[in-house]
Amino acid sequence: MSRQPDAEAIVGEFTRAARAALPALRTATTPQKDQALAGFARALRDGRDALLEANRRDLDGTRDAAPAFRDRLTLTPERIESMAAGVEVVAALPDPVGETVTTFRRPNGLEISQVRVPLGVIGVIYESRPNVTADAAALCLKAGNAVLLRGGSEAIATNAAIADLAGPALAAAGLPTAAIQLVRTTDRAVVNRMLGALGEIDVIIPRGGPSLLHAIHENARVPVIQHFEGVCHVFVDRAADPAQALAIALNAKTSRPGVCNAMETLLVHREIAPSFVPTMAAEMRARGVELRGCPATLAILPDAKPAVDADWDAEYLDLVLAVRVVDDLDAALAHVGRHSTGLADAIVTEDRAAARRFAREVDSAAVFVNASTRFTDGSEFGFGAEIGISTNRLHARGPLGVRELTTTKYVVQGDGQVR
Amino acid sequence: MSRQPDAEAIVGEFTRAARAALPALRTATTPQKDQALAGFARALRDGRDALLEANRRDLDGTRDAAPAFRDRLTLTPERIESMAAGVEVVAALPDPVGETVTTFRRPNGLEISQVRVPLGVIGVIYESRPNVTADAAALCLKAGNAVLLRGGSEAIATNAAIADLAGPALAAAGLPTAAIQLVRTTDRAVVNRMLGALGEIDVIIPRGGPSLLHAIHENARVPVIQHFEGVCHVFVDRAADPAQALAIALNAKTSRPGVCNAMETLLVHREIAPSFVPTMAAEMRARGVELRGCPATLAILPDAKPAVDADWDAEYLDLVLAVRVVDDLDAALAHVGRHSTGLADAIVTEDRAAARRFAREVDSAAVFVNASTRFTDGSEFGFGAEIGISTNRLHARGPLGVRELTTTKYVVQGDGQVR
Repeated sequence: MSRQPDAEAIVGEFTRAARAALPALRTATTPQKDQALAGFARALRDGRDALLEANRRDLDGTRDAAPAFRDRLTLTPERIESMAAGVEVVAALPDPVGETVTTFRRPNGLEISQVRVPLGVIGVIYESRPNVTADAAALCLKAGNAVLLRGGSEAIATNAAIADLAGPALAAAGLPTAAIQLVRTTDRAVVNRMLGALGEIDVIIPRGGPSLLHAIHENARVPVIQHFEGVCHVFVDRAADPAQALAIALNAKTSRPGVCNAMETLLVHREIAPSFVPTMAAEMRARGVELRGCPATLAILPDAKPAVDADWDAEYLDLVLAVRVVDDLDAALAHVGRHSTGLADAIVTEDRAAARRFAREVDSAAVFVNASTRFTDGSEFGFGAEIGISTNRLHARGPLGVRELTTTKYVVQGDGQVR
Repeated sequence: MSRQPDAEAIVGEFTRAARAALPALRTATTPQKDQALAGFARALRDGRDALLEANRRDLDGTRDAAPAFRDRLTLTPERIESMAAGVEVVAALPDPVGETVTTFRRPNGLEISQVRVPLGVIGVIYESRPNVTADAAALCLKAGNAVLLRGGSEAIATNAAIADLAGPALAAAGLPTAAIQLVRTTDRAVVNRMLGALGEIDVIIPRGGPSLLHAIHENARVPVIQHFEGVCHVFVDRAADPAQALAIALNAKTSRPGVCNAMETLLVHREIAPSFVPTMAAEMRARGVELRGCPATLAILPDAKPAVDADWDAEYLDLVLAVRVVDDLDAALAHVGRHSTGLADAIVTEDRAAARRFAREVDSAAVFVNASTRFTDGSEFGFGAEIGISTNRLHARGPLGVRELTTTKYVVQGDGQVR
């Protein structure tokens, strides 16, 4: 955790400017914020050619990188349009600031309201996707926060070109330009300095792969909202509708295997296994899925690969599926309790009691009954946009929308009450 | 942050037992938890003589300590009764676990409910007040958590005697005795080990003075819910009802000057200062309050002590008051914005617009209009009991009741939906 003088000065200056912007952001009206977001979206569309040119410079600098990496880094006219449209979606969301969470009256006449207010200064640390620059900026601003963005060094020209468009849009709406700031140095010491900025940055939100998340988790002193791996389970109960179970399992595994809410382990009740497993296996294999099974699974599917202990904790993020036959609901709950990473787990069953037990006893951010784990997503939950999915137990758990980027305060109205 | 093998083994064993208790606690019924609490309260009353005897041993060991310290450590029959009654109050609170925070239906038919669930394993680190042992245990259990208690070494015999009564009460209700565990070694390495127990302890709640809080804040890797100093302000606006302003100021300063929600700085609008300040000063002085004033205050009260810069940030916790005359509401807001520690601040005014601006722009956990800052308290807010007051921005802000000792999960019910 070296603190180079540069990083110290850079982050200090950014956070001072961000904190100075907070009072104006706290009292910014919804139309002001929405005007700034609309202006930002317009500027993204109008600035298309400059954005593509900046992006070309970044791509030129990463010729030797993996194709998947370069693809994430690449802007296209379509991706710019989608980024602008995303900012407009955020502008159209209800403003969470000022929302009354609860109001109650005390016997002594005090009226107590809990109201939403901005969180403060949010640090977003991310990798090579330039759209995070626009998405995170828009979400943080909508909730009245100042954001300090620190993207991957390979995307620096693109990110700078995007961030350059935010300042004029903020100014035109009468908002402080320090509300959206991008760190324009690639010095990695900046990240460590941000992680230690207690009292300067209120929360860090990382966006990226497991190695980034773990490094931040290990080193952060500032509170972090984040999620780790998603080892998600689908349990096909003996009382499952087989067609429904098949559709859910196929969707959860194959619709987008590289994302955190994809299924990694399929649990099958032993009473339904002889009929369900062969059909499931055929459909999975037809979609290119490799199956790794427990001994009972192998008894039904002799050609499946044997699963080893590590398979029950693996986040494949790929067309690989671990399959385990379990004796009953208790065994399924025990397996999930031990191996789930707490993101999303599902049961497929027509048995109301089994569904209720699974929903009550599985302690994950999202628990599904007769639906795919793939719905664990801010847009699917109707939050309009998400800045991530939290597996934290404190503050917010599950998909994070603009509401989760706020905190609350109590406003207490009296007529001279004393204690 | 030395990790002695003893501390490592001790805390490891405690947290393993606590985590193993979580599934049973998660599904514990309200009557079960309330029965355990009722049994614990009964045992505290029935065990009075043993508690007093254990407490005598602790007191014998601290003959040279300050009287205030020994007073905090002392149990009396009345204090034991109050501790038992406090546990009964918690038993009578509504169970937050299972409460539905919000439910919504998506266009695709998914029904999404956000429901309250226990936080998990809570570490409570506190000083010499033995009542915290019973209070914290009761609050954590009510919310379905396992608690690991680490009290001050001077109170070890008393705390052990109290904690000994919890196990049988839990067992009689069919709950795991590991739900309430007390660290029975005074090795300070245990505290450091607890602070670093990421993934074993879900949250640390410290109870104690500024030095304990700061040490924990500096060293914790586990999330901490805590509050620091309360430098609380009362602003007497020009449109204040003078009698109300006087009553509120006197109450906020003198009803219990040693607590965090007591006023430390009084701000007075310059238009009301010539009439208000002399009356206020006379009443304050009659109650033994020392006044420290800004130059404009000294012009009205020549015999007050001049305030120095440090006075505006001082948490006196004593009969001392800093007084500043301000030009207008803007100046009052600027002073509060700069010097408030974000716990509680108040305005006294009959001017609705001024009240609304103060309530909106002051970013503290509790903002009061025409009421004393002293109401910043879980019992006064109607939470029945509190485990602390949070000035964290994440998770919970303000008085913490049993609801704040929970997290949420999403339960999603479908009919086979896939994405």
